[in-house]
Amino acid sequence: MLSAIFLGKETQTVARPANSQSNSTEVPEVVITRLPQYIRVLNSLLDAGVDVISSQQLGEQLQVTPAQIRKDLSYLGRFGKQGRGYNVSYLATELKQILGLNRRWNVCLVGVGRLGRAILSYPGFVPEGFEIVAAFETDAAIVGQTISGLRIQPIEELDRTVTRQNISIGIIAVPSAVAQKVVRRLTECGIKAILNYAPVYPQVPPQVKVRNVDPVLSLQSMTYYLVN
Amino acid sequence: MLSAIFLGKETQTVARPANSQSNSTEVPEVVITRLPQYIRVLNSLLDAGVDVISSQQLGEQLQVTPAQIRKDLSYLGRFGKQGRGYNVSYLATELKQILGLNRRWNVCLVGVGRLGRAILSYPGFVPEGFEIVAAFETDAAIVGQTISGLRIQPIEELDRTVTRQNISIGIIAVPSAVAQKVVRRLTECGIKAILNYAPVYPQVPPQVKVRNVDPVLSLQSMTYYLVN
Repeated sequence: MLSAIFLGKETQTVARPANSQSNSTEVPEVVITRLPQYIRVLNSLLDAGVDVISSQQLGEQLQVTPAQIRKDLSYLGRFGKQGRGYNVSYLATELKQILGLNRRWNVCLVGVGRLGRAILSYPGFVPEGFEIVAAFETDAAIVGQTISGLRIQPIEELDRTVTRQNISIGIIAVPSAVAQKVVRRLTECGIKAILNYAPVYPQVPPQVKVRNVDPVLSLQSMTYYLVN
Repeated sequence: MLSAIFLGKETQTVARPANSQSNSTEVPEVVITRLPQYIRVLNSLLDAGVDVISSQQLGEQLQVTPAQIRKDLSYLGRFGKQGRGYNVSYLATELKQILGLNRRWNVCLVGVGRLGRAILSYPGFVPEGFEIVAAFETDAAIVGQTISGLRIQPIEELDRTVTRQNISIGIIAVPSAVAQKVVRRLTECGIKAILNYAPVYPQVPPQVKVRNVDPVLSLQSMTYYLVN
């Protein structure tokens, strides 16, 4: 899935949540992918003591047009009154609920090499509700070690641990050559959301979401502007 | 800049390269951002011994429509003949040249905490032509240490080093609170491309590009599908 990157592909749509107040249209994936950024900006505004914000001001913060913001939010419900702006706290709370961010998610990591260790020690996940509760390796020299407080498990324990620890999300930090195989194992365990750090695009069934974290692609999308 | 994320914003356009063979339209930023993925897939095809590929097949690999691929490439020139498909090697070479990837780029890192060290040891940059040649810190306890073969410099040396080492790209791995300040310092040194690992959106002048690497946002854009 390139959906995290190919956001221009607005044709990808998903079922509207049953509790949404909006009309019967579906929510494009590109809109879902923008919402976490709305929430982040709204949280900053709350920290700064801002109670109400117009789509104009919100657009400036997010560097998108106010029309885009109104359109995105219109998929999800009614969050403001014409000319009155949005209540920052209410909008943040509602968006978090829509995205399922008002709860904790158990995450597992597959691949505890150099990159995997950096991911295990990354301080940004837990405060946002994502906790890596299990880590797996195939390398027998690493299995059994305790790293960042986790006992590294052999990959054979994946299925049992995912079930027992109610793990919903998998993070992959394995070499490219085995990424597809690991993705398959995760999906066979019922994992439906995968964060992939391997620089390849694994194929997944339609009900599984993959987001790719790939700093090289980001660098390569800027050099054009340095040479032109 | 949220352009790395807000790829739906197709209105962002850039000047067409002077040496392009295409018509006089500008190349949307969303297209530029997709090209590195085209190149990556084309390289895999080359490794697999594939000489020619149709837009249909290329689309399947990239999980976009063949029409999207033809449209994207039409901004840049003529790369295939109707019904004949694309020559994989030629297309890869041309796209690399258009993106400025047929050369080496010198990169500096600002922030050598836990995340910065992981970035310094990340093995994926150099093979793609991006070499971190300098690293900067404000913490006096870290300045002067040698990490991943680099002597960590005080931030005060940034300007001089950027000039002397012909550094074009900056990577930021500093706390959110100081990210905007670091971005300003980098742009004042003439840096026009920034890869930002801090979970904030720095404001930059229009001629400067920023891409944000943010695994939490990626996770948050998948949970919607787990709860709905």
